[in-house]
Amino acid sequence: MLGLGKMGANMARRLARGGAVVHAWNRSPDVALSLAQEHANVLARGSLAELVAGLATPRLVWLMLPAGRATDEALHTLLPLLSPGDTVLDGANAYYKDSQRRAAQLAQAGLHFMDAGVSGGIWGLQNGYALMVGGSARALAAAEPFIKILAPAPDTGWLHCGVAGSGHFVKMVHNGIEYGMMQALAEGLALMNGKREFDIDLAAVTEMWRHGSVVRSWLLDLAAEFLQRDQALDDIQPYVADSGEGRWTVLESVEQGTPAPVTSLALMMRFASQGQGDYANKLLAMMRSGFGGHAVKEGEA
Amino acid sequence: MLGLGKMGANMARRLARGGAVVHAWNRSPDVALSLAQEHANVLARGSLAELVAGLATPRLVWLMLPAGRATDEALHTLLPLLSPGDTVLDGANAYYKDSQRRAAQLAQAGLHFMDAGVSGGIWGLQNGYALMVGGSARALAAAEPFIKILAPAPDTGWLHCGVAGSGHFVKMVHNGIEYGMMQALAEGLALMNGKREFDIDLAAVTEMWRHGSVVRSWLLDLAAEFLQRDQALDDIQPYVADSGEGRWTVLESVEQGTPAPVTSLALMMRFASQGQGDYANKLLAMMRSGFGGHAVKEGEA
Amino acid sequence: MLGLGKMGANMARRLARGGAVVHAWNRSPDVALSLAQEHANVLARGSLAELVAGLATPRLVWLMLPAGRATDEALHTLLPLLSPGDTVLDGANAYYKDSQRRAAQLAQAGLHFMDAGVSGGIWGLQNGYALMVGGSARALAAAEPFIKILAPAPDTGWLHCGVAGSGHFVKMVHNGIEYGMMQALAEGLALMNGKREFDIDLAAVTEMWRHGSVVRSWLLDLAAEFLQRDQALDDIQPYVADSGEGRWTVLESVEQGTPAPVTSLALMMRFASQGQGDYANKLLAMMRSGFGGHAVKEGEA
Amino acid sequence: MLGLGKMGANMARRLARGGAVVHAWNRSPDVALSLAQEHANVLARGSLAELVAGLATPRLVWLMLPAGRATDEALHTLLPLLSPGDTVLDGANAYYKDSQRRAAQLAQAGLHFMDAGVSGGIWGLQNGYALMVGGSARALAAAEPFIKILAPAPDTGWLHCGVAGSGHFVKMVHNGIEYGMMQALAEGLALMNGKREFDIDLAAVTEMWRHGSVVRSWLLDLAAEFLQRDQALDDIQPYVADSGEGRWTVLESVEQGTPAPVTSLALMMRFASQGQGDYANKLLAMMRSGFGGHAVKEGEA
Repeated sequence: MLGLGKMGANMARRLARGGAVVHAWNRSPDVALSLAQEHANVLARGSLAELVAGLATPRLVWLMLPAGRATDEALHTLLPLLSPGDTVLDGANAYYKDSQRRAAQLAQAGLHFMDAGVSGGIWGLQNGYALMVGGSARALAAAEPFIKILAPAPDTGWLHCGVAGSGHFVKMVHNGIEYGMMQALAEGLALMNGKREFDIDLAAVTEMWRHGSVVRSWLLDLAAEFLQRDQALDDIQPYVADSGEGRWTVLESVEQGTPAPVTSLALMMRFASQGQGDYANKLLAMMRSGFGGHAVKEGEA
Repeated sequence: MLGLGKMGANMARRLARGGAVVHAWNRSPDVALSLAQEHANVLARGSLAELVAGLATPRLVWLMLPAGRATDEALHTLLPLLSPGDTVLDGANAYYKDSQRRAAQLAQAGLHFMDAGVSGGIWGLQNGYALMVGGSARALAAAEPFIKILAPAPDTGWLHCGVAGSGHFVKMVHNGIEYGMMQALAEGLALMNGKREFDIDLAAVTEMWRHGSVVRSWLLDLAAEFLQRDQALDDIQPYVADSGEGRWTVLESVEQGTPAPVTSLALMMRFASQGQGDYANKLLAMMRSGFGGHAVKEGEA
Repeated sequence: MLGLGKMGANMARRLARGGAVVHAWNRSPDVALSLAQEHANVLARGSLAELVAGLATPRLVWLMLPAGRATDEALHTLLPLLSPGDTVLDGANAYYKDSQRRAAQLAQAGLHFMDAGVSGGIWGLQNGYALMVGGSARALAAAEPFIKILAPAPDTGWLHCGVAGSGHFVKMVHNGIEYGMMQALAEGLALMNGKREFDIDLAAVTEMWRHGSVVRSWLLDLAAEFLQRDQALDDIQPYVADSGEGRWTVLESVEQGTPAPVTSLALMMRFASQGQGDYANKLLAMMRSGFGGHAVKEGEA
Repeated sequence: MLGLGKMGANMARRLARGGAVVHAWNRSPDVALSLAQEHANVLARGSLAELVAGLATPRLVWLMLPAGRATDEALHTLLPLLSPGDTVLDGANAYYKDSQRRAAQLAQAGLHFMDAGVSGGIWGLQNGYALMVGGSARALAAAEPFIKILAPAPDTGWLHCGVAGSGHFVKMVHNGIEYGMMQALAEGLALMNGKREFDIDLAAVTEMWRHGSVVRSWLLDLAAEFLQRDQALDDIQPYVADSGEGRWTVLESVEQGTPAPVTSLALMMRFASQGQGDYANKLLAMMRSGFGGHAVKEGEA
């Protein structure tokens, strides 16, 4: 297990509790040492070389590194250390095309690559993680015992989606759907909030909808919960961050030529919430005022 | 109970099973007679006058009439038959502004009006109906025993949303959210379907997402179920009907000035699926070809 | 001419310059008196009764009143003063359904109604006004001499679109198109502004596009002009107001079931620029943070 | 001039008419020979080697090759033939990132690269071509005499936008704006067409709008022209093709995080017109019918 951030550390814990021996490495070594103290079957490793050396072949190296260059850098270091037949699994979020590229790169060295979209957040330690896995059947055989420990139950909550890249692809689409569903729910709740004359109790409505309505969903559960505590949201900034998956989903739509208008728009609304549409809005304000200003110039001519 | 269509008849059945005495009327009397044969405590009524005469005051008249003029016509007939203090509840789908108008109209005659958005479809008979109810506290008192029989459980699945009109308003917003959520889910599934190289099993993915994913929802359950039977959908027409609630939600957004871009777009995509965008697309095709055609004309000048 | 705001006063001036005798009334009488001093053939009228009394039958009464109730109030006052065969023309912006209603109302009294969508802004005095006119052929006959004075030239820039209501309908659609075109242009310019590495001179690009590009348009002319003066727009608020026509266009799309997704979205983006989407964005921010918060609760269970 | 398709051949003609000596090559040599017969100062070249050999240094090689691999293949062939200080200008449509990559590739060999977005279609031969040019000042010096012949007039209709890549970038954004403007116009015209009760003459309205309206534009001119000939469009397919620029513009919006919702949606509507949204619509139809179907299953349980 390389990378012991919030996700990686908890996954290591769940694996350890499930009886697996986990060789753990992190850029700052304290986290690995602390994990090793928690669990006897977690072994803290000081370097990638030490970690690889400690594993019997065929090895399984599980990456949970931050997005960006870290994964490519780790692969670059690992490549000469690993032996043909070893498997590298990337469980962090990544663009599926990067995963396809990495799979091809590793295959040249006789290594297997797997990609796993992992969902579960901070409650995954207790409840398990949903895993969407891509890679060959041989690679899966190596990883499957560990996937079964991580999943909510050995047979549910994980899926071998297909070849390398398909795991991150399915996770990407999952998050794209999430963008649209969230936006739809938020728009409806805002319309109720905006209807002052009815003075609707959003907490009560969302709680009621949880029982038997067509829109019942985990996102609704979540909304019902925080609306129970606060409906005014006066202290919340109307700023909605976005991460890679939403963007990648729109790129996919454009590349395929398959329309995903609502998904795209949900992403664009997040951009707008971040103030990235301000310049366009200034231009529009200028055009509107210009209907008059231009006229003056024309009139003088 | 006026109007024994699919919804009305099953609601009458559930009320009868729950111990209520139901006076039932339908435009074509066979349905009422048949219901009366099924249940001893359903009484078939041949006319509105007979139905009203058979009820002790204060009466509760529950309308489940088809959309359009039927409700206004029934109110027109009922108005002289009812007595001050009686309550009329409209459980059919209606634009909340119509419900507000009807409430004002009945109030002038000393009658109470309630509006109830009813969700549940054909499985409501067994599982109960979610009811979003608007109207005064006094009117609610008359209707509450029956609402509790109809609901999945006496205390869940129904809500007194506020004054008359608010029940249909909340139901309208519910359906607006449904439009956006459905569209988001469909777009994501279509992107997976369009990624031929991965040959993803949509039934397996949706089934897996039901366990622990962020997008788990009743709509996903539904999709997982029919994808299990058929993923190709070769025999399905790509035509998506729309009903009043989606349209009313967009009108509400425009009137409030509260943006509901994803909801609006989900509705517009349905219009497009119905071929209503064909003329615009023909115009666009002409404009594209015209880039050349116009040039010819210019060149000749 | 009833209503001597910016538009009405300039239209009265253009009519007077064109040789017409104009009976002018305004809520605050100063404007009418001032116009009468400017032009010998403008007659200031102190009341609607005086104005009507001073006109020979068949009369033509031209309304340029502010949006809202003013037009209905004026019609209410005028109705008993006018004689069968007289014509009332509403040249202010109005929802075409209101114009249809007013036409029916006046027809009962034997009066003609015309509606005219007037475009031209403050440069119309010099250049003429584009008029989109609805009403019967008989009504048009009365108004045509004046329309020809107002138009840029007697035969261009005005159109008899059809029956009463159609003038305001065509003007409404015109403005709807304007919303979408403006938004498209603003988005493109913002993308160039956002591409810092190219440091593109937006004034130069828009000026160049005016010559021979596919997007050449009056809106582009306008943009080129103000970008020449200021590209940073640091002192401009990113707030884009909206007026009735954009909203009515979206209502029309929804009522017809004819998709107008880009027009609708351009309107929604204006709502968002006005901060009307803030509550939805706060909800989205809460949902995002809730992915974790919810987990904690689950974990404790 | 490499590549004598419709655009390339006419540009060669305009250059020849303007007095330039044009060395012309095409994959199928007939076109080059035919051009050479038309114009004494067009020299047909049988191979890239022959073409390069015939040019005095510093050379200017102008590419007008079809999208895809052709440009990279030509560059691969040209690279060993050219000498430091020569300039290659790509006047075909290309993704600006490809142009940036090619500029870097050529710079390593001491060659200059320019990219030019060329607008003008088949009327450019007579009226000139609008050129949006990227590249260094030195490269521009070599190309400027030819650019001035191609442009509508020596000083208008072309712009040095900035460094290599910026020309194709500006052209890409131009086309993105075009997508949105076209869609906005088409939506408005479709709303008028859909309003049967007014029976509006779209040809008359668009012609009138050309005089003084806010939406006057070249696209409107185009629409007015073909609507004059045919408003029913019965024989036109509602299929709207799309090309690279619209897609690249959306990718740019996503990469920048600058919202371009209307542009994106205009593209998505084209995808939908191509039937690419059919699978999503089938899913939606299934979900709608499933509200009932699911119920049956539930009821039986």
